[in-house]
Amino acid sequence: MADDRPDSAGSDFDGSGGERLTYESSGVDYDRIDPLKVLAQRAARDTGANLDGAGAREVAASRGESAYVVDIGDAYLASITECLGTKALVADAMCEASSVLRASEESEESKASEASRRTWYDHIAQDTIATAVNDIVTVGARPLSIHAYWAAGSSDWFDDVERMNDLVEGWKAACDVLGVAWGGGETPCLTGVVEEGAIDLAASCVGIIRPKSRLTLGEDLSAGDAIILLESSGIHANGLTLARKLSERLPEGYATLLPGGRTYGVALLDPTVLYPPVTEAAFAAGIDLRYIANITGHGWRKIMRHPGRFTYRITEVPPVPEVLKFMVDETQQTAEEAYGSLNMGAGFALFVRPEDGDAAVACAETEGIRAWVAGVVEDGPRQVVIEPLGVTLAGESLALRD
Amino acid sequence: MADDRPDSAGSDFDGSGGERLTYESSGVDYDRIDPLKVLAQRAARDTGANLDGAGAREVAASRGESAYVVDIGDAYLASITECLGTKALVADAMCEASSVLRASEESEESKASEASRRTWYDHIAQDTIATAVNDIVTVGARPLSIHAYWAAGSSDWFDDVERMNDLVEGWKAACDVLGVAWGGGETPCLTGVVEEGAIDLAASCVGIIRPKSRLTLGEDLSAGDAIILLESSGIHANGLTLARKLSERLPEGYATLLPGGRTYGVALLDPTVLYPPVTEAAFAAGIDLRYIANITGHGWRKIMRHPGRFTYRITEVPPVPEVLKFMVDETQQTAEEAYGSLNMGAGFALFVRPEDGDAAVACAETEGIRAWVAGVVEDGPRQVVIEPLGVTLAGESLALRD
Repeated sequence: MADDRPDSAGSDFDGSGGERLTYESSGVDYDRIDPLKVLAQRAARDTGANLDGAGAREVAASRGESAYVVDIGDAYLASITECLGTKALVADAMCEASSVLRASEESEESKASEASRRTWYDHIAQDTIATAVNDIVTVGARPLSIHAYWAAGSSDWFDDVERMNDLVEGWKAACDVLGVAWGGGETPCLTGVVEEGAIDLAASCVGIIRPKSRLTLGEDLSAGDAIILLESSGIHANGLTLARKLSERLPEGYATLLPGGRTYGVALLDPTVLYPPVTEAAFAAGIDLRYIANITGHGWRKIMRHPGRFTYRITEVPPVPEVLKFMVDETQQTAEEAYGSLNMGAGFALFVRPEDGDAAVACAETEGIRAWVAGVVEDGPRQVVIEPLGVTLAGESLALRD
Repeated sequence: MADDRPDSAGSDFDGSGGERLTYESSGVDYDRIDPLKVLAQRAARDTGANLDGAGAREVAASRGESAYVVDIGDAYLASITECLGTKALVADAMCEASSVLRASEESEESKASEASRRTWYDHIAQDTIATAVNDIVTVGARPLSIHAYWAAGSSDWFDDVERMNDLVEGWKAACDVLGVAWGGGETPCLTGVVEEGAIDLAASCVGIIRPKSRLTLGEDLSAGDAIILLESSGIHANGLTLARKLSERLPEGYATLLPGGRTYGVALLDPTVLYPPVTEAAFAAGIDLRYIANITGHGWRKIMRHPGRFTYRITEVPPVPEVLKFMVDETQQTAEEAYGSLNMGAGFALFVRPEDGDAAVACAETEGIRAWVAGVVEDGPRQVVIEPLGVTLAGESLALRD
């Protein structure tokens, strides 16, 4: 356990302005969670042999990857459970602001703007699903079914019919885009566990890897392979604690206008891109996907998610979404800090043979997602070198396996 | 939405004593959650056709059952996500009490009782896993892998090394008993969503139904079939909101002694029975399981979980665990209220052909779980008739499907 971390109490930056705001000082303290993760990972590893009696076998190499894989004979199964995090708190704040606006407008203009209230839970639903499906496809799985986990702090949560409808409709719409079945879910009321007025959102997903040759665990990744980066839509679901802290020290908070004319809060709520249609298109096109990485927490450090000793040299840097550029500027982060913690415009990475690079980009663009042949895998120390920015993210800074 | 329900605010019974305490008045208001469930169920149902492109097919009859089933060709997959609920709050209170005890003893007897602190999170881990696996086996699945969902309110939660170890060890031990692989999990810190000091615990599970003849959705349930009830260990993970409310009005709270000499709090924390070894044994013994029901929320009303028009006549009532008898007496519940909301000593039900009754009981007892041929399925209105108690639970009181 690290004792030299700043305290994670939530009020360090209230109204102070101008001070540097880093990922750790915003209240997320990864080093304090990691000992539990390591303990759990070790105990979990020892349970793999339990499958021997079930006519199944674990794929041990999937431990440490983004989804767990079991061999059931003529196919592999993949499974995952993922949490949205705290992004719904931004939606709650924005909805509250729009309700206040409506109330004041109603008194002045007698209900002229009934439509101005916006819950944003359709976007939040897509974000929650994206956290699970964007991970499960990295092992080559085709997502089949999703379960919802919506734990509210009180029964009151369910009284807001508009928000309920948005959550349900957004969840269904994302399932339809993905071609997955919404299998069910759990909607408990957890007074005393979940905060009054809040909701804890998560999704679990089951996928199938068939034919078995689709299994993608990175054994074939080689020097010379091309790195394809796929655009993000904005902050996605990582870095929201920092984003919320920043809003507290902005005089206008979420209502702060970005240069393009949208507010900071609205831009934060752009829903996470759903990448599974791209991996499906790539498999359908016969592209040899050598490795796949979802760029989430730890930002571009996730480009070196593969356990091998490789240097990832980036020569083309995708444009940075306005909301991320604003956050980085306002919190005075260095490029190394920003690219080491946020997606900075690239939410997903495919690693393919060099001759497949253009075809992989075409698969993404056919699905409406911009993509770039952004770099190359090289033999060398494990690191990400972002050449145009003069930034190097060192391998030791990403410890996902004990 | 029902407007005639008592308010769910949490302080109705503080210190008042003697007043009747029912399930609804304790703060769980199922009728206010149900509209969301219905909305979500309908939207989810419409996504089943999405699997057509995936070489898979949903088993529509599994909607409304306890786990979702997908046909992948030579096997069925089952999946589920389940929440512990608020039982961890009881463990937290008991751990707190033992720590205070230790601290006062330390000052008097200089650390004579170092070992008296007890976190109970090994039991809580088993409870959480039980909520998922006891449901997934009801469709005939053999559980394969489990994912953990442990969402803490702050990084501080992970500083208690003893509690962390108990949670991890209890989780692994339950997986080993079940013969399932612990595939991974999510351990987020959700400040602002989960209460400071609390943890939101859930589990997701994937199972396989192979051979496909194991699929158990109740098509063959018939008048004359025997009802086998399996013993519970105590409250399991349902009714904890009521249990916590009761502790607030007991002068000695969780430290109240039960007639057998244990405290109320310790008895509440008896871990939920893991029933999957019994269903596996029954399948191995060639017993024709016509239907399976996990008795959780809604108590014995779950015996009529099957959608058919049957009367379930109970002629043998298992002994009531001391902690449940105490709760029912203290809250002055009628037998109808008690059996309609708590497991009352029967945590799981198997429905078998009459000639298989004794063999089913033997399967349970071989696994160390007491069981009874407790009744019979009859043609008639959908209801549970508990003959020895003169109690009838009406079918309309259990609406699981819209």
